[in-house]
Amino acid sequence: MNDLIYPSPDDAENAFYDAFERADLRAMMKVWADDDSIVCIHPMGPSLHGRQAVEESWRHVFNGGVPMRLAISDGERTHEQALSIHIVHENIRYGQDYSGHTVVLATNVYKLTASGWRMIVHHASPTGVPRDQPPDTDKLH
Amino acid sequence: MNDLIYPSPDDAENAFYDAFERADLRAMMKVWADDDSIVCIHPMGPSLHGRQAVEESWRHVFNGGVPMRLAISDGERTHEQALSIHIVHENIRYGQDYSGHTVVLATNVYKLTASGWRMIVHHASPTGVPRDQPPDTDKLH
Repeated sequence: MNDLIYPSPDDAENAFYDAFERADLRAMMKVWADDDSIVCIHPMGPSLHGRQAVEESWRHVFNGGVPMRLAISDGERTHEQALSIHIVHENIRYGQDYSGHTVVLATNVYKLTASGWRMIVHHASPTGVPRDQPPDTDKLH
Repeated sequence: MNDLIYPSPDDAENAFYDAFERADLRAMMKVWADDDSIVCIHPMGPSLHGRQAVEESWRHVFNGGVPMRLAISDGERTHEQALSIHIVHENIRYGQDYSGHTVVLATNVYKLTASGWRMIVHHASPTGVPRDQPPDTDKLH
């Protein structure tokens, strides 16, 4: 397994969030599978399909230039032979003094490819309510 | 395979959206796996874990009493032996004359269990922009 870039889904996930925090586009795109069926959904954004659209979106995010610190927690995991699904809270501190705070929910899917575990899906969405509180489902869905 | 309730992931997905549209809680909970690791995320809501929390949330949704019609489109699928991941647009028309319209993005994960394919993850989130438009990623992530 020494020739695999990311020997486990956790290695791929760590590389993903490391690239995200460092705003490193090249490292970010190394995590994503070399596959045009990859899908990335940023909070409130559309579904982006394929490496070109995904790379363009991250370039846009990183060009924003907002310093941030990411802490990942509460992972729920489902693992099969060649697929691994992680649902995580992204606890994001941002701004010049990191005083801004937001929590994003993400479903991340990793796939075992010929070159190790790679990300194939990142679905991130805002959480409108504090963690562990019931959702306001009086509204539609 | 005749003893399986949902012989394919598509059968489970069709049953899920049928139960959703009909606001049928019993049918809805039949689609979900009998497993406390199931996760449901409603738009802007927290991650709900386990059958009890998931059922309670759908009861809340269905008690809202808003008539709706659902059309599912643009599925991206990744399939392994016992896991199937579908990313879909939920085109929702709602209200007494179905004049309201919203589009929700959902990542649905189905697992092959001893009793057929069942849902284990539903991550739904609002789309803040028209489909096929670039996201406003000048903002943070």
